[in-house]
Amino acid sequence: MIAKIHVTLKNGILDPQGKTVKHALENLGIANIAEVRMAKLITLRFGDISREEARACCEEACKKLLANPVIEEYSIEFADNEEMAG
Amino acid sequence: MIAKIHVTLKNGILDPQGKTVKHALENLGIANIAEVRMAKLITLRFGDISREEARACCEEACKKLLANPVIEEYSIEFADNEEMAG
Repeated sequence: MIAKIHVTLKNGILDPQGKTVKHALENLGIANIAEVRMAKLITLRFGDISREEARACCEEACKKLLANPVIEEYSIEFADNEEMAG
Repeated sequence: MIAKIHVTLKNGILDPQGKTVKHALENLGIANIAEVRMAKLITLRFGDISREEARACCEEACKKLLANPVIEEYSIEFADNEEMAG
């Protein structure tokens, strides 16, 4: 069981890293991008547990460590047999 | 037009950040995780250009700046009307 957790900045929260990347891309000649936002993808691989257990585990991990609820939000997707890197 | 670029470490490449997160989660009492891997999600918003143009732009951005081809691989997904943060 693989869980993919996307941790993104909430709408309206300034993303200085994204702005820096946009600026760098412009300097490289890639100028038709309106906005860049950076986020994290955290892939968790579980052993042989149910999806409900995995979801509870992911929620706990996000609340305790992975996401800052003041400025970030997270979403969780599951895949059964997918590769970790994908 | 929104493009979501996932930049992940190639399979077999050591992920020290993921190992650190796994260890931190264990210290918080979340012990049933077999592996953690960290990756980047970069969301690009384009103006009114075609999907082909957007894809060419994303490929160029990945090759020139966003991904390190020695250790990372990337995948690109498109969404028409999705929110940046999602």
